[in-house]
Amino acid sequence: MLHIVKNYTGDVLNFQMAAELADDDGIEVVPVVVNDDVAVQDSLYTAGRRGVGATVFVEKIAGALAERGAPLSAVAAVAAEVNERSRSFGVALTSCTVPAAGKPTFELGEAEIELGIGIHGEPGRRRGPLAPASEIAAVAMDAIHSDVPLSGDVLVMVNGMGGTPLIELYVLYNEVQKYITGKGARIARNLVGNYITSLEMQGFSVTVCQLTDSLTDLWDAAVDTPALRWGR
Amino acid sequence: MLHIVKNYTGDVLNFQMAAELADDDGIEVVPVVVNDDVAVQDSLYTAGRRGVGATVFVEKIAGALAERGAPLSAVAAVAAEVNERSRSFGVALTSCTVPAAGKPTFELGEAEIELGIGIHGEPGRRRGPLAPASEIAAVAMDAIHSDVPLSGDVLVMVNGMGGTPLIELYVLYNEVQKYITGKGARIARNLVGNYITSLEMQGFSVTVCQLTDSLTDLWDAAVDTPALRWGR
Repeated sequence: MLHIVKNYTGDVLNFQMAAELADDDGIEVVPVVVNDDVAVQDSLYTAGRRGVGATVFVEKIAGALAERGAPLSAVAAVAAEVNERSRSFGVALTSCTVPAAGKPTFELGEAEIELGIGIHGEPGRRRGPLAPASEIAAVAMDAIHSDVPLSGDVLVMVNGMGGTPLIELYVLYNEVQKYITGKGARIARNLVGNYITSLEMQGFSVTVCQLTDSLTDLWDAAVDTPALRWGR
Repeated sequence: MLHIVKNYTGDVLNFQMAAELADDDGIEVVPVVVNDDVAVQDSLYTAGRRGVGATVFVEKIAGALAERGAPLSAVAAVAAEVNERSRSFGVALTSCTVPAAGKPTFELGEAEIELGIGIHGEPGRRRGPLAPASEIAAVAMDAIHSDVPLSGDVLVMVNGMGGTPLIELYVLYNEVQKYITGKGARIARNLVGNYITSLEMQGFSVTVCQLTDSLTDLWDAAVDTPALRWGR
């Protein structure tokens, strides 16, 4: 069994316990930790980088290989490869309200944005003034590009945090595309929509994965889930 | 050519002009006006009832019949039939901001909701305090049920206005389902998601169509569009 674990301290601990329980039942478990978020190192919830949007890529691509009957070690290897090749950055226009808490996780002014948010609604690396989409996209893409320079064919997800209309995600996608093209890379595949969210938060994250032919082939493999559906 | 026109004064006028232009080119045009919104009679933008969510049903079902090669008169007749059998009601938790205006169309307090909104972000029939989903669903469903009593098999859409996360739409769908079942009717088909929106408005609309076997068959017909995709 493959455990795809987002790198949050609580998640890592709970998956460890689950792996021990599975082991008692004679089930082999291989964990792969996702830690693609370039925004924050050692946050409130994490040692090291957080796992965010790359989880969608890891699950799709590792799932496709598993469906072809590959052994667990190979599926885990491709999951780790996708994580290593992926980087993300998130921006929020509003906080979200966790139902049990009943009030917003953080407060943001009408004309403020939070740069580098995670998927649990936690605050990011810094706060800034609301700016045009091109400038916000540049902040996110600069953070990604300075970590792993953009080149070749990439898979890009522009993901809504839950309360962002699709039209705004496409405005951002357009800016992300211009940025990536400007660096001499090419968006070979893309995904725009609400895929990994924080309740009703308004905002987006962008995730970039450097593709290989083999990863593209696994991404393209037919899929039929509530969120991803193509080729069938 | 079938013109599916939402009943807003501006839309009706512009479609009339378009029909005249088409007529000059020898294209026969049949207009069908959609006016399913039970919330408001003679609003800021409309004489009579507004056209809202039923538009999605009309377009899908009339489209399926057209695809089967039916004559224009039959396609227009089924479009009118779907409209006659459909009723909608919308609720907003926030206004939207039309980009050209640059400020919210109306102001709502943190704990206020607007009952009976249209899809252009215009205010509704009255304002009320924020309430549990079951109570908000009951206001919407009471308005629909008192206009055309629920019975038999129905098609239900719980539609997000653009800024509402899917999880909240499903909470509402659950309440709508309980209401409809309580009236002795049955949800034979459903659609939950963001299909007919008002920019980034937070809120929902619910649309109910009383099905016939023939309408169900046309609804089920294979479709492959950006928003609706099944059976192919």
